Amino acid sequence: MTTRSEHDTSHFEAIPESRCKELLAAHTAGRVGWSAPDGPVILPVTYSYYNTQIVFRTSPHGALSSLERRTRVAFEIDEVDEQGMSGWNVLVRGTAQGVTNRYNLTSLWKDGPVPWAAGVRTLFIAITPERITGRAVRAAFVD
Amino acid sequence: MTTRSEHDTSHFEAIPESRCKELLAAHTAGRVGWSAPDGPVILPVTYSYYNTQIVFRTSPHGALSSLERRTRVAFEIDEVDEQGMSGWNVLVRGTAQGVTNRYNLTSLWKDGPVPWAAGVRTLFIAITPERITGRAVRAAFVD
Repeated sequence: MTTRSEHDTSHFEAIPESRCKELLAAHTAGRVGWSAPDGPVILPVTYSYYNTQIVFRTSPHGALSSLERRTRVAFEIDEVDEQGMSGWNVLVRGTAQGVTNRYNLTSLWKDGPVPWAAGVRTLFIAITPERITGRAVRAAFVD
Repeated sequence: MTTRSEHDTSHFEAIPESRCKELLAAHTAGRVGWSAPDGPVILPVTYSYYNTQIVFRTSPHGALSSLERRTRVAFEIDEVDEQGMSGWNVLVRGTAQGVTNRYNLTSLWKDGPVPWAAGVRTLFIAITPERITGRAVRAAFVD
């Protein structure tokens, strides 16, 4: 008897860190995950990859504003082909914190991320990566 | 002086829970977030929305296998149009746990999620939702 896994020619492939950084620079939409007091949360953001940090803008009143205070976070981008069953993802693990440096804030207002959503999005949050990993997967079941 | 936010006609719109469930049923790729001992993690999975649970298969040896033990998680799906600056997301918050019920396991082997990646993916993890929320966003800056 052959099982599905014996036919399986799909595989994970690590994406080198340099390529992960290129992917981060090439995209503008990702997801932030952290531990809120009532459990883990994942929320999408539009971001810029700016001076090796991931920067996004948010409202001082929304759920993401809690990241103004130094918080451990995960940040993820991916591209998934549900039909083709292939895709890649980049996972950044690091620390989020509100941007307070005046020089950086001036640059960010000028060149930083443009949020899609309405409202007063005056709070800039920057994620400083500690680890950046990525992997690609392609499925090829021969059932 | 007019500011960008005064021109801003974009908005968040809540997606009703019934529609969130339709979206969960209509898709097969999402992301699980949880607090690992060394900080938050987000990893993509292929899943089935099965009997009101989110079920995915994984290897007993990978990072996701830690969710076999009851763990609070976030699960997210989204669709983002980076050019059109619009998108939606569904966020499930709940508890993940390994599937051990023999009847459920038999059904899952037959009809459950097909993982894309190779290897022995014999571990089924089910997420029981506690809260399901979703929102859509469309940007329309008139700068």
